[in-house]
Amino acid sequence: MNLTILGCYSATPRTNTNPTSQVLEIKNHMFLIDCGEGTQVELRRNKIKFSRIKHIFISHLHGDHYFGLVGLISTFRLLTREADLHIYAPKGLKEVITLQMKLADSWTNYKLIFHELSSKASELIFEDDKVQVYTIPLKHRVYTNGFLFKEKEGDRKLDIEAVEQANINIAYYRKLKQGFDVENEDGEIIKNETITLKPKKPKSYAFCSDTVFNEEIVALIREVDVLYHESTFLEKHKKYADPTKHSTAKQAALIAKQANAGKLILGHYSTRYDNIEDFKIEAKEIFNNVELAKDGKTFKL
Amino acid sequence: MNLTILGCYSATPRTNTNPTSQVLEIKNHMFLIDCGEGTQVELRRNKIKFSRIKHIFISHLHGDHYFGLVGLISTFRLLTREADLHIYAPKGLKEVITLQMKLADSWTNYKLIFHELSSKASELIFEDDKVQVYTIPLKHRVYTNGFLFKEKEGDRKLDIEAVEQANINIAYYRKLKQGFDVENEDGEIIKNETITLKPKKPKSYAFCSDTVFNEEIVALIREVDVLYHESTFLEKHKKYADPTKHSTAKQAALIAKQANAGKLILGHYSTRYDNIEDFKIEAKEIFNNVELAKDGKTFKL
Repeated sequence: MNLTILGCYSATPRTNTNPTSQVLEIKNHMFLIDCGEGTQVELRRNKIKFSRIKHIFISHLHGDHYFGLVGLISTFRLLTREADLHIYAPKGLKEVITLQMKLADSWTNYKLIFHELSSKASELIFEDDKVQVYTIPLKHRVYTNGFLFKEKEGDRKLDIEAVEQANINIAYYRKLKQGFDVENEDGEIIKNETITLKPKKPKSYAFCSDTVFNEEIVALIREVDVLYHESTFLEKHKKYADPTKHSTAKQAALIAKQANAGKLILGHYSTRYDNIEDFKIEAKEIFNNVELAKDGKTFKL
Repeated sequence: MNLTILGCYSATPRTNTNPTSQVLEIKNHMFLIDCGEGTQVELRRNKIKFSRIKHIFISHLHGDHYFGLVGLISTFRLLTREADLHIYAPKGLKEVITLQMKLADSWTNYKLIFHELSSKASELIFEDDKVQVYTIPLKHRVYTNGFLFKEKEGDRKLDIEAVEQANINIAYYRKLKQGFDVENEDGEIIKNETITLKPKKPKSYAFCSDTVFNEEIVALIREVDVLYHESTFLEKHKKYADPTKHSTAKQAALIAKQANAGKLILGHYSTRYDNIEDFKIEAKEIFNNVELAKDGKTFKL
C-alpha cells in the first residue's frame, strides 16, 4: 500500500503548493482521492500513469478538493481513454461535469459512471475480491465524506513443511489456503490450522478531510493502520477552526489516539503557515507516530 | 501596451506548458484573456497583482480556455476582494460558475457581473474614455469570439513654441488639446492644427483563438498593430486543422498579411510539437514580422 500526496494544502493553489489530491495504491488499484486544480499536472510530475486511474473519490464540493476534476476527465478523453471511469462524489458533481461537457460539445468516448453520495451514514461504496471502500461521514460546512480503504483478508499461507509431513495431495492446496480441513493420502482428516498460517494482516487507510473535530468518526476508523486527518490550523488558531469547521493538529492527534491508529498523517495546512513542522510538534504531544504530508511525498505503508 | 503570455499551448496542461491565458496591460487596465487550468498560479509566477484584474474575456467554452476561471473567482473571494469583476464570455458560463458556487455554498463577497455573449456579429462589449473592446466572431467547433482591444485616440499635443508665439491664454490649452480653434489675447481666431500636433497613434491588439482559417475576420482587424492568431498545427498537418477547426502557422500568416497587421504572434501550439521554432519559419515565408508566444514571455508593444 503506497500513498502519494499530490497536494496537501488548503484553499488556493500557489506556485509551490497544491490543493488536496492524493493517490492510494492498494492491491493493484490506483485510487485518486480528491482532485484540486493542478492535479493532472501533479500526476504527470509524479509519473503516475493516467490509465491506471479507474476510481476517483471526491470528499466534498469545495473547489480545493475538485476543481481539477473536469480537466482531468477532459484530458482522459484527449488521450483516447477507453476504460470506464468511476467517480464517487456528493450529489451535484454529475450536473457540474455534464453541463461543462455539453457546453464544450465534447463528450467522453469512455464510460463515465457517477456514484452520487448523499447518505449521512457510513456506507460501502466499492468492493471487489481484495478491497472495500466505505464512506466516513464528516462534519464540514457542506456535505462531506472521508473514505476508509480496507484490504480484505487474503488466503491463509501453507506451512509447507507441515503440509508435506501430513502427506496431502497437491490438488488440495487451494482448499487449504481457503481455510478448509482436508483429507490426506491416508484417508485422515487434517485440521486446517495445524498445517497453515494466518494470512498477512490486511491493511487499512482512512482519509478524513475536511472536518471539524468529530469523535463520532472514531468508531468507524478504529485500529486503522494509517489515518490522514486534516489539520488546517495549529491550536493557537483554534478560534478559526471551529467556525470554518476545520481541525487543529492537536485535534487530529486526539482522533488518532482514540481510534488507536497505527500512524497519523497530517495535511490540509492553511497557507498562513510558513513552517509546517509546528504541526508535527503539536500532534506528537498527544500521539507519537505522526508524519507530515508534503506535496510529492510517497508513504510506503 | 504590454502582453504577458501565461499559457499558449492547446489541449492539456503539462508540467512545463500551460493552456491559453494572457494578460493585456492597456491604458492602466489589466485585461485577462482566457483562463485555462493553472492560470492563477501563472499570475502569481508572473507577479501580476490579482486586484488589478477587473475584466476577464473568455473566447469559448472549451476547457483549455476557461477551466481555471472558477478557481480564480474562488481565490478572489478568499482574498476578500471587494471590487466588481466583469466576465465577458459565451452564454452558459454563468450557469457553470453559479452552479459550482451554489454547491460549495460559497458566494462571492464582491459583485460578479457576467456579460454573456451570443451574437454572431462583431459587437462593442467594453468602452471607457480610453479603450474599446470589440468581439471578433471566429469559426470553431463551438461558439467562439476573438477580441479586438483598441486604444482611443488621445488628446492632440501642444506645439508649445507655436502656442506661445500665438499669444494664447493658458486657460485655453485644454480646448486646444481637444482639437478646438481658440481666440488669442489679441482677439484673433487661431486654427488648431497650426499650433498643435497629432496625438500618438492609438494602438490595437487582436486576439484570435481558436479558429479555422477564416478570411472574414480580416475586415475587422485591418491595420491592427499586433495580431495573436492561433496556429495549432504546421502546414504538414493541415489535414488535422480543418476537421478540428484550427489553423496552421501559414494560415495565421496569411491572415496577418491580408490584414496588414504590424506584428503577428503565434500560439496555441499542439503539444505534439517539440520545436515551436518551426512555426515561425513557416509563417515568415508569408509574413515577416512574426514572434512566437511562450509561457511567461512579455511582449512590450
